[in-house]
Amino acid sequence: MRIYDIIEKKRDGHKLTKEEIDFFVQEYTAERIEDYQASALLMAIFINGMDEEETVNLTESMAKSGDMLDLSAIDGITADKHSTGGVGDKTSLVVAPICASLGIKMAKMSGRGLGHTGGTIDKLESIEGYNTSIDTDAFFKQVNEIGIALIGQTGNLAPADKKIYALRDVTATVDNISLIASSIMSKKIAAGAQNIVLDVKCGSGAFMKDEQSAVELAEMMVKIGKKCGRNMAAVITNMDIPLGSNVGNALEIKEVVDILNNKGDEQLRELCLVLSATILSISYGWDYEDAYIKAENTLTDGSALNKLKELVSAQGGNTQMIDNTSLLPKCDNSLEIKTNQDGFIQSIDSKIVGESAVLLGAGREKKTDTIDYGAGIILYKKTGDKVSVGDTVAILYADSDEKLKNAEKLFNTSYKIGAEKPCEQKLIYQTIR
Amino acid sequence: MRIYDIIEKKRDGHKLTKEEIDFFVQEYTAERIEDYQASALLMAIFINGMDEEETVNLTESMAKSGDMLDLSAIDGITADKHSTGGVGDKTSLVVAPICASLGIKMAKMSGRGLGHTGGTIDKLESIEGYNTSIDTDAFFKQVNEIGIALIGQTGNLAPADKKIYALRDVTATVDNISLIASSIMSKKIAAGAQNIVLDVKCGSGAFMKDEQSAVELAEMMVKIGKKCGRNMAAVITNMDIPLGSNVGNALEIKEVVDILNNKGDEQLRELCLVLSATILSISYGWDYEDAYIKAENTLTDGSALNKLKELVSAQGGNTQMIDNTSLLPKCDNSLEIKTNQDGFIQSIDSKIVGESAVLLGAGREKKTDTIDYGAGIILYKKTGDKVSVGDTVAILYADSDEKLKNAEKLFNTSYKIGAEKPCEQKLIYQTIR
Repeated sequence: MRIYDIIEKKRDGHKLTKEEIDFFVQEYTAERIEDYQASALLMAIFINGMDEEETVNLTESMAKSGDMLDLSAIDGITADKHSTGGVGDKTSLVVAPICASLGIKMAKMSGRGLGHTGGTIDKLESIEGYNTSIDTDAFFKQVNEIGIALIGQTGNLAPADKKIYALRDVTATVDNISLIASSIMSKKIAAGAQNIVLDVKCGSGAFMKDEQSAVELAEMMVKIGKKCGRNMAAVITNMDIPLGSNVGNALEIKEVVDILNNKGDEQLRELCLVLSATILSISYGWDYEDAYIKAENTLTDGSALNKLKELVSAQGGNTQMIDNTSLLPKCDNSLEIKTNQDGFIQSIDSKIVGESAVLLGAGREKKTDTIDYGAGIILYKKTGDKVSVGDTVAILYADSDEKLKNAEKLFNTSYKIGAEKPCEQKLIYQTIR
Repeated sequence: MRIYDIIEKKRDGHKLTKEEIDFFVQEYTAERIEDYQASALLMAIFINGMDEEETVNLTESMAKSGDMLDLSAIDGITADKHSTGGVGDKTSLVVAPICASLGIKMAKMSGRGLGHTGGTIDKLESIEGYNTSIDTDAFFKQVNEIGIALIGQTGNLAPADKKIYALRDVTATVDNISLIASSIMSKKIAAGAQNIVLDVKCGSGAFMKDEQSAVELAEMMVKIGKKCGRNMAAVITNMDIPLGSNVGNALEIKEVVDILNNKGDEQLRELCLVLSATILSISYGWDYEDAYIKAENTLTDGSALNKLKELVSAQGGNTQMIDNTSLLPKCDNSLEIKTNQDGFIQSIDSKIVGESAVLLGAGREKKTDTIDYGAGIILYKKTGDKVSVGDTVAILYADSDEKLKNAEKLFNTSYKIGAEKPCEQKLIYQTIR
């Protein structure tokens, strides 16, 4: 088999066989295919497309390119939740305790933040002592004992995807549904959970700009997962609405605790419950409405919050910071952002909010940057809210006034005020099963 | 300007501007664009196409990427002839003397052979003493004095094309009319002649497999040349018919001399006259039929043969070898290929004939191989000829019996004998002006 012939075949619009896709993935991962040949093939795939079978084969091939986590050491039903990227997205830290408190085994590996999107692992590390890198045996043991563990990605999951994604990123071959779907799903398949629920974002800052294309992507990923023998569902959500009010690591942990205390942002709470109910429904075969009520009960009876504390405690974190979130890291310097106009908030650009948080020190521009856990943004006004001159829109937190000044300039471009009250935007569009 | 945006634009089927094409060509030649980005763009160009304006811009940009020969030091009308590749193609060595003997200034740079196709420069070097590498001043001086010079490529003509072609060759992006046309024409434009006639091959071993696609390519190249201010024509010819009887350097010089002596293969003679008449016609504005008669007269009156001798003499070659071609290099070892079947030659695969000649030592598999000028093949039977068991189809020449045996095996797969006389195939399909 020769890569040249595979490129030529896809160039001419033909379907690639499983063997050809495996050959490309294996040989490229092993650096026996040149980048310039891989990028020519990826462009041919981008333009001429891949059908469902090819996309499933690509996914499985990339999943198998590295370690495949074997969760059989875990007793019970495993589930995983994945978001296609968001600003202020702390849903995993709410959903995992809810589901674990209802008996689902949440053996979850998460990533760190890069650019405008945050990472669950960084958020957890804002809790004093929380250890995100425990070994696989201890990880499984903890899940068996308390039903939940949340650690950084370990092992070598889907290295082919990593290598292919890096190439797509510099050759304008990112925005293709088959390539996006196989990239996301290869990592989820390798991560081993039996039940997978995806939060597929759409909006100006997401891969998918509108609901229709987000639905297409979600349907493709659900099909792939099912073909790989997993129970699947996907919730389509609006990325143009920041999730909750807080952006930044410790600030987001505080918001998570609020939600688990049955308080806090209504839209964020709703999304967490929808995601949890969907996981419970596909994992247990429960009726969705019943699942939703059971999930909601874990917020009112405190069992989800207790599960979070068990998690933090098991991984060495200081649970006092959960009981009293004012103990979480917080920056001394802050800056209030005030409106100079009457009207209504027309829109908030989540991506710019995320980038402002990076300038404040809450995120990384490059992988080697360190994070200031106490830095971030609290939004006091959101899309649709009425504002008058001098109202506080947000407070920025950082360790220096210079960072505050820098971030202020950018943050001020993130929202628009207009005379008319804008149409209400939905956070959750639909669920694909 | 960023290459990423240019890739994305062509990926989405949009037209590239002159500035974008110039940016790609200049930056890639300067190695400031990565191969994997260039190959992604080339694949997008391959699949989504380029229109005439883009193709002209790509051609001019590649032509200007290196030296542009300035032929203004030559008094009179300059012309060039180019073939898109062939086996046993010695037409340049007939056409250039014919046209020069009628006053056209033939300042021609030619290439060396690689793979199954031979090179004019190698053929000339089989003449003892012939110097193919004279400097530009001497080259112009010779053209002004005797109207003809034939040397190896000097300077740095269209380096962008060289680099881009090498990448296309390993990424399945060769067979695209815009890319082929711009590649060929960039070198011709850089070579500076005012009048250009192309011999566009079609057939199983050529870029273009059938007459229709060869016509498309020819039309594109003629348009490009005209847009660049040159007088243009292209003759579409059949590559499935070997040109003449001899393949191999000294053997081909002998055949050239035969034609210039108004003898030899009828089809080869016809093609040389058509190409010459076309050059004369576009260069002088002569009526084509008149031009043809004038070209033919140079064969009957010996003036074209004299011009070849002037050329060989001017470049230090031994003209006795032209007067008496038995003095040309010839291998001592030979092998007669005989038929074991009665019938008619159905077809001869030129490419396999060319590859057999390489095995005999007449060509190069890689650039650093040396050539045995005396090696080669004389075909005694051609497509359509009647054969009986024991007839000699060809004689192979090499410096060892081992090479003869190796080449024999391959050569025997080059022709097919069948009971029926095949339909007569045309060598020359049509001329595009």
